[in-house]
Order: sequence, then C-alpha cells, then structure tokens
Amino acid sequence: MNKIITIGRQFGSGGRELGRLLAEELGIPYYDQEIVREIADRTLMPESYVQQIIEQRKIVAFPLHIAKSFQLATDLQIATNPKIEESSAIFNQQSKIIREIAEKSDCVIVGRCADYILKERNPYRIFVYADMEKKMKRCREYAPENENFGDKELEKHIMEIDKRRASYYNFHTGQKWGDPINYDLCINTTNLSIKEIVPILAKLF
Amino acid sequence: MNKIITIGRQFGSGGRELGRLLAEELGIPYYDQEIVREIADRTLMPESYVQQIIEQRKIVAFPLHIAKSFQLATDLQIATNPKIEESSAIFNQQSKIIREIAEKSDCVIVGRCADYILKERNPYRIFVYADMEKKMKRCREYAPENENFGDKELEKHIMEIDKRRASYYNFHTGQKWGDPINYDLCINTTNLSIKEIVPILAKLF
Repeated sequence: MNKIITIGRQFGSGGRELGRLLAEELGIPYYDQEIVREIADRTLMPESYVQQIIEQRKIVAFPLHIAKSFQLATDLQIATNPKIEESSAIFNQQSKIIREIAEKSDCVIVGRCADYILKERNPYRIFVYADMEKKMKRCREYAPENENFGDKELEKHIMEIDKRRASYYNFHTGQKWGDPINYDLCINTTNLSIKEIVPILAKLF
Repeated sequence: MNKIITIGRQFGSGGRELGRLLAEELGIPYYDQEIVREIADRTLMPESYVQQIIEQRKIVAFPLHIAKSFQLATDLQIATNPKIEESSAIFNQQSKIIREIAEKSDCVIVGRCADYILKERNPYRIFVYADMEKKMKRCREYAPENENFGDKELEKHIMEIDKRRASYYNFHTGQKWGDPINYDLCINTTNLSIKEIVPILAKLF
C-alpha cells in the first residue's frame, strides 16, 4: 500500500512549506491547491468559488456524519439550505479525488481532511502549529506588498482562518481539529527551522 | 547553555522508555525517579510519601500561581489545608533540584513540570501519548505478574493516573497538560516502535 503523509496545519505555521519540502526530500508528489483545481474541473464550478465553499462554510446545527441518525431533520435542513448541499457535494468530490490520488503513488497531501478520508490506509498524520507571534511574523514575510494589516487585525485574520479550518474539519470528520490524538506527530514550528527539520522527518519514512 | 530535553507523557504511552533511550542515544544523563529520591533525602521524608504527595494531590479551588492576586483567600486556604502547604514545599524543593540538574550538564528530564520550571532555558519539550488500547497493551506487558486488572478496571486506572498528572501540572504551571502549544513536539506512540524512532529523534539535537 502506498505511503501517504497528511499534513494539517494552523495558518501561518509553515505547514504547507513543511509538506512541500518533505515531498521534495522524499521525491514523491505533493498535493494542495491541485485538489481544489481538480474539483473545479470536475464540477465545472470556478476554482475561486470551490475555494470559497471549502473555506467559508459556516457551522450548522447537525454535522452530516452524525445526522445519519436524524435523517428527517437533515433532509429538512438540506432542503432548506442549498449551501449545505453544495458543500456536501464538494466534500464528496474532494474525498473521491483524494482517494484516487492515494491510489496512484506515495504522496504528501496538505489539509482537506485527508487524514480522515484516508484513515483506512493508515496515513502518517502530521499537524503543524506555532505560537501567534511566530505565525504573525511568518504571515508578514509571505504577505503581498500591498497587504498592510495592523497587528490586531492580522491576529484576528489568522484566528478567523483557523476557526474556519477547525469548523470545516470538525464538521466533516466528527473529530477535533488539532487534537493530538488525531495525529501521529504534532510539530511546533515556533522555535525551529523548517528547512533543517525536514531531512530528519524524512527519515521516519 | 546546556541542552535540556523535557518529556511529558501519558501513563502507558512509553514516554519514560523514550526518554531513557533518547538519553542513552545522546550519551547524556536521564532523570526521573532520581528527583523524587533527592527530594526525600533533602526533606527527610520517606520517598514513598513524597511520591504520594506528588501523585495524589487533589484539585483545589485556587491554583497558587493565580492565587497571588487573592493573597487573603490563599492564606486562609493554606492555613486550613496543611496538604497544600506540604505539596507546595515539595514543589519548591523539586524546582530547586531540577534547576541544579539543568545547571550541571545536558540531560533528559521526565515529568515533574520540568518544561515549565526550566522555561527560561528554552528546553526542548516533548509530549508522548497514545490511544487507550495501546496504553492498556503496554501496561499489561510491563505489569507485575500478580497484577490482574480487568479491561475496564485498567482503563479507569490509566485515566485516573493521567487525571492526577494533569491536575498536578495545571495547578503548578497554570498551563494545560498535553496541550500542544506547551510542547515543541508531540509524539503519538500508538503505531510506532519507540526503539526505531529514538535514533531519528536524536538527530534533532
């Protein structure tokens, strides 16, 4: 069975960079935005719209995986809330694509609940996080030149993105995003150089 | 400044073994029960009694580090609760010993809030955990022959020990035991061989 590495990450923690470098070091494919692009292709929705659905979903009353026991309530809810239906359709498409990717070869997949979607393949599940100060510093380094958030604004921005990621993950998996028990390794990037840790991490595989 | 590695661990997760092997691999001293023995020597209390005070402390209303702002309430509480005073005296002694240890040489220290006590020395803080099934399996492997816990009883036993560890840590540090943000690396030992991961981990230092 192919060796799959999944990476969950807080915004600004460097998880994407860690995933990309780890895939490079291991000489295996790396998937991130490619998945959104593939969903857009298959659903004929614009990529930006798919991204928006994935990232901006609101918390709803019944997570779909629990709601199976509450079929009537869910049916009613879906019938009255097309956004849920759309988000659910996109999640199903995403799951299908992620399973196809895992079927093809060893790989690194960033985000998108891949740890949960592929759980029967026992992926190696990494979660990357850092303290707020370091995440803010990293965001400023990578921000476009015309982006000028104040400190408070940037902190709020980071917290909002992570809140959405958590809500998306918790909703679709019934697990808690960032809870160590759902990962094999949790790496705090506050005090480390991602470039230096990647060759060591790679030896795990 | 000496390189200090601290290890927090769930009961049955293999954290102690990981710490011991890591110290061996790095050729540096390893401290665990030695600290309790040293407290016992210095306070002239029996080692088993010191252990009991450390492990069996109950949650109290005001953590001491917060209670500084509530001096009167704390004074009253300590005056009426000699156990708190004793536990606090032992924690102070323990902190002193841990600082002396860190002063001497590079080392690995297991448990005892060492990550918090030595925070100004920027220790590398590892937390080791596993799922309940694996922790139960490990406990059975290492249990004395005459110990015959049923499954439910063993699970309860493990949960109680971790509850005490959490309460001791949270009380003395004002941080949350096992919360990733308080550690540099959290390692799930459910699916891995501790002997195999140690040489890789050692490369971090």
